[in-house]
Amino acid sequence: MSSDISIIGLGLMGSALAGALLKAGHRVTVWNRSAAKAEPLAAQGAVVAATAAEAVGASPLVVVCVLDYAATRQSLEGADLTGRVVLNLTNGRPAEAREMSAWVTGQGGDYLDGGIMAVPQMIGAPGALVLYSGSRPAFERYEDTLAVLAEPRYLGADPGLAPLYDLAMLTGMYGQFAGFLSAAALIASEKRSVAEFTESLLVPWLHAMAAITPPMGAQIDAGDHATDVSNLEVNRVALTTLDAAFRDQGVKFDLLAPLKAVMERRVARGHGYEDMSGLAEELR
Amino acid sequence: MSSDISIIGLGLMGSALAGALLKAGHRVTVWNRSAAKAEPLAAQGAVVAATAAEAVGASPLVVVCVLDYAATRQSLEGADLTGRVVLNLTNGRPAEAREMSAWVTGQGGDYLDGGIMAVPQMIGAPGALVLYSGSRPAFERYEDTLAVLAEPRYLGADPGLAPLYDLAMLTGMYGQFAGFLSAAALIASEKRSVAEFTESLLVPWLHAMAAITPPMGAQIDAGDHATDVSNLEVNRVALTTLDAAFRDQGVKFDLLAPLKAVMERRVARGHGYEDMSGLAEELR
Ligand SMILES: NC(=O)c1ccc[n+]([C@@H]2O[C@H](COP(=O)([O-])OP(=O)(O)OC[C@H]3O[C@@H](n4cnc5c(N)ncnc54)[C@H](OP(=O)(O)O)[C@@H]3O)[C@@H](O)[C@H]2O)c1
Ligand SMILES: NC(=O)c1ccc[n+]([C@@H]2O[C@H](COP(=O)([O-])OP(=O)(O)OC[C@H]3O[C@@H](n4cnc5c(N)ncnc54)[C@H](OP(=O)(O)O)[C@@H]3O)[C@@H](O)[C@H]2O)c1
Repeated sequence: MSSDISIIGLGLMGSALAGALLKAGHRVTVWNRSAAKAEPLAAQGAVVAATAAEAVGASPLVVVCVLDYAATRQSLEGADLTGRVVLNLTNGRPAEAREMSAWVTGQGGDYLDGGIMAVPQMIGAPGALVLYSGSRPAFERYEDTLAVLAEPRYLGADPGLAPLYDLAMLTGMYGQFAGFLSAAALIASEKRSVAEFTESLLVPWLHAMAAITPPMGAQIDAGDHATDVSNLEVNRVALTTLDAAFRDQGVKFDLLAPLKAVMERRVARGHGYEDMSGLAEELR
Repeated sequence: MSSDISIIGLGLMGSALAGALLKAGHRVTVWNRSAAKAEPLAAQGAVVAATAAEAVGASPLVVVCVLDYAATRQSLEGADLTGRVVLNLTNGRPAEAREMSAWVTGQGGDYLDGGIMAVPQMIGAPGALVLYSGSRPAFERYEDTLAVLAEPRYLGADPGLAPLYDLAMLTGMYGQFAGFLSAAALIASEKRSVAEFTESLLVPWLHAMAAITPPMGAQIDAGDHATDVSNLEVNRVALTTLDAAFRDQGVKFDLLAPLKAVMERRVARGHGYEDMSGLAEELR
């Protein structure tokens, strides 16, 4: 069943979303602040609205994907949101999503927030995931339509949840990249191939070590950090060796230095016998 | 074919190594500074040496697994290493391994260094890996024997390579843990289940993101950081949003703060259009 959908914001991501919906046979109306970005989509069959308000008027589902929440608000300002579902796929913070939800609801609209866990090239292809939160009826009404873009995962009625989980996933990813970049600099310091090291040793190791994070998560949930494998004191010593090795090799230890500092702080406070999971408590 | 092997150091790891070799039918001689730790192995059939020098004299292959390289040196001091293969599985730095190799070789011994990528519970079970470097003839002579402990991977004649790759793998792992711990603290700040988030969202995401590190490694090898997916400027903005979200949620951003700082430095130096792989150059 094809639906009418409007897309506000035709940057790299908005254009990918509009393209995938057009390909799936939906009637798509588009608007972008700079009109030129609508042209390739018009050629694919999109209706081009003259104003954002006109785009809002054209479809019951209005997808917004712009730079930030301030741009979302600026685009929707003055449009009649009565009876519309506004799905904001713009990146932001939980607090911003809750504010936007209150504002849209106050204008008579229904609000869904979303976090896109994919790059534009992955939209409409397997492996892409979009997190949703906010109005459950709105999600259920459009779930099948949205499944065209990426695997949809609904997290709950609190609109802040999609940005919360989105940002937490990015946090995990950036930590992994920080570790990779530091490891790469260490390997490069001896003029060895970083690509070969990463492919044959690091990636399988990261997979194996990721597997022990869910039990660590359970320990954080329970506030119980007992361990019989590898305690904080052992890890503190390992990070001290790493720090010295980075110095030997002339490589900056900067990206891991705060982990070492947090460990030292927690060990100094008498938690050396505990699991690394206990460090989450030091971040409060 | 069973061999004679001596093990010096019966901490958690040395005891696991000795146990696995005994189980495989080898004649194992053991020594530990505190004699009591040899008792369970004696019960499994190990010969207990009265001194480290006696243990060295008992077998052509001498495995050392103690606290650090200073302890390795202290244990071997005064023993006759002529014609022995010394395999040091103690954790250390590349520079320490090269020094130890020169010392052992100077005493008429053959030197192999090793990095154990496993916890003691994994020794002798699938999934365990040990990195080796140093004397190739020594490695080839004992490769089959050592395969009982873990998958053996020989990296080259430079004895510093096993510690180098070992430390680089630990570096990657600690980055991944730092990301996980920060993500966990963010989820916990909203009283959501960290275990469920980690299992259902974070781990698959980390797997997917690990898959893009080998191409990043190739870019670091080539010194070419072009990108058409996600440039540093976009990542800098994302880390700024993350920083603000952590502040909103009352969670410390400490573990990722240096990654943000390095990105800002590199963008300020005019590399905003490049891939994140370019950050490795900032760590020199
Ligand atoms: N690209 C990705 O890999 C990716 C992945 C996940 C999430 N996201 C999120 O998706 C959103 C869009 O990203 P993108 O990659 O499409 O970015 P982009 O290519 O830089 O496009 C930004 C869009 O925002 C519009 N915009 C900026 N300020 C505006 C304002 N004041 N009023 C109206 N429109 C305004 C721009 O309009 P003009 O054309 O007129 O400048 C453009 O359409 C961001 O929140 C991003 O974090 C992107
Ligand atoms: N456990 C792991 O998960 C793991 C994983 C990979 C690598 N490793 C590495 O394996 C090595 C041993 O670790 P472990 O877990 O077995 O540690 P451990 O249980 O703490 O045992 C330390 C061993 O070192 C000995 N030792 C310390 N100082 C000594 C000295 N001056 N002279 C002689 N012996 C000395 C101790 O003898 P006493 O009994 O007399 O104190 C004990 O046998 C370390 O380098 C560690 O980094 C461990």
